[in-house]
Amino acid sequence: MIGIFDSGVGGMTVARAIERVCPGYPLLYFGDIARTPYGSKSPETIREYSRRNTDFLLSHGATIIVIACNSAASTATDALRSEYDVPVLDVITPATLKAAAATRNNRIGIIGTRATVRSEIYRERIESIHPGCTVISQACPLLVPLVEEGWLNRRETKMILRRYLHPLKLQQIDTLVLGCTHYPLLGKLIQPRIGKRVQLIDSSVEVARYLKEYLDKNKDINNKLKKENPTSRFFVSDSTGPVRKLADRIFGRNIHLEKVNA
Amino acid sequence: MIGIFDSGVGGMTVARAIERVCPGYPLLYFGDIARTPYGSKSPETIREYSRRNTDFLLSHGATIIVIACNSAASTATDALRSEYDVPVLDVITPATLKAAAATRNNRIGIIGTRATVRSEIYRERIESIHPGCTVISQACPLLVPLVEEGWLNRRETKMILRRYLHPLKLQQIDTLVLGCTHYPLLGKLIQPRIGKRVQLIDSSVEVARYLKEYLDKNKDINNKLKKENPTSRFFVSDSTGPVRKLADRIFGRNIHLEKVNA
Repeated sequence: MIGIFDSGVGGMTVARAIERVCPGYPLLYFGDIARTPYGSKSPETIREYSRRNTDFLLSHGATIIVIACNSAASTATDALRSEYDVPVLDVITPATLKAAAATRNNRIGIIGTRATVRSEIYRERIESIHPGCTVISQACPLLVPLVEEGWLNRRETKMILRRYLHPLKLQQIDTLVLGCTHYPLLGKLIQPRIGKRVQLIDSSVEVARYLKEYLDKNKDINNKLKKENPTSRFFVSDSTGPVRKLADRIFGRNIHLEKVNA
Repeated sequence: MIGIFDSGVGGMTVARAIERVCPGYPLLYFGDIARTPYGSKSPETIREYSRRNTDFLLSHGATIIVIACNSAASTATDALRSEYDVPVLDVITPATLKAAAATRNNRIGIIGTRATVRSEIYRERIESIHPGCTVISQACPLLVPLVEEGWLNRRETKMILRRYLHPLKLQQIDTLVLGCTHYPLLGKLIQPRIGKRVQLIDSSVEVARYLKEYLDKNKDINNKLKKENPTSRFFVSDSTGPVRKLADRIFGRNIHLEKVNA
């Protein structure tokens, strides 16, 4: 199965994108709702939780791991790659590759949580791929709570988005990376407010495309996955009403969340 | 010293209220920013963190403990009282006593985080003091992020408040408990939106008054505290820009936060 983990429910946008881009593969999701958010925790703790999540996914049949959490991707990817004998993909790398390839005026915007922006991970990656680039970051700490409340089309959300995006607009970016797995749910509100000429890079879609390329190249894993029963499973370490609603909203259908003490 | 702990910086409104109501006493604050929020954690974990926080405060000279965190107050108060040989006050009890005494039409509103409202702790306490009361709760999950961003007088905050308070207004409450330590910062916005006839009960102020009564009655502790050097100290387990700004804003002056690995 394709194992995916996140600190919460936002990573389900990655699972949904993988379902669309790589249809027919069985997904195994783990959302660590009980310990969310990872962004405010120490690197050691984030690595420890990431190991536990990986162990959980492997013990339930995963043969490839996708880190759908930005904090875990920036902090734990190297550790997991060196410690585990399975392929480990992360949600950050594909989006930075895509952004560096897409920009024409070499001005790229990044929006993310305060933790992601402070880590400078997107900026460092993009500048290492494309040294001539100017990367402008904007922390948008209210967007995750707004999405988690399901306020996806409210006037307040639109006003707050306009306020966050305005500085990026002034900087004349032509490419904007949605550097948080919750943000694709706001894509339709973001596009008109940042301007229709700005290309949005959805990190969830990019990691799904990257996975597809990976599977096309690695026939062994691909064949193994294709032989499996294509029933996906979604595990969470805690389950509340808003979490279940958000999961259903992301998939556009009823998602059965299995609660585990992980 | 008067030891005060919270999962974050919100509990500083309790410290500030104690400073006003009981001037001249030395305060010792610990904000567990690295592990915030407690509300989404299991009761065992909240109790474990509360013990650690109490140990920290006692080892730095506290002789009385005030639990300024709603999640810890509802989950860990009994454990701390039975395990430690110092007085333990909690932020919930005084506000519920005050609300039960203040209401005239027996309709009390409670606003708090989703975790606090789900715990039903305010409702249970008020109904046990005043069985004829109707308690109407409203979770306001966006208010903490708005306060933490410092959006205390923005149009978006006012709109969101109006939306949250509207159902309580329809229920014709005459008393509203601010059941979260962040909310006193929004008191001036809340009063006109809930109506000037509704009495606001500020849990931070109520616990400070309760502490004053306690000290008036317990001369031993009082005399000991009065002999101490009245310099307050503020410790946090993590320190970020928004946290420092919020601390300064709560006190209306520059607050020196000492970061510790606790």
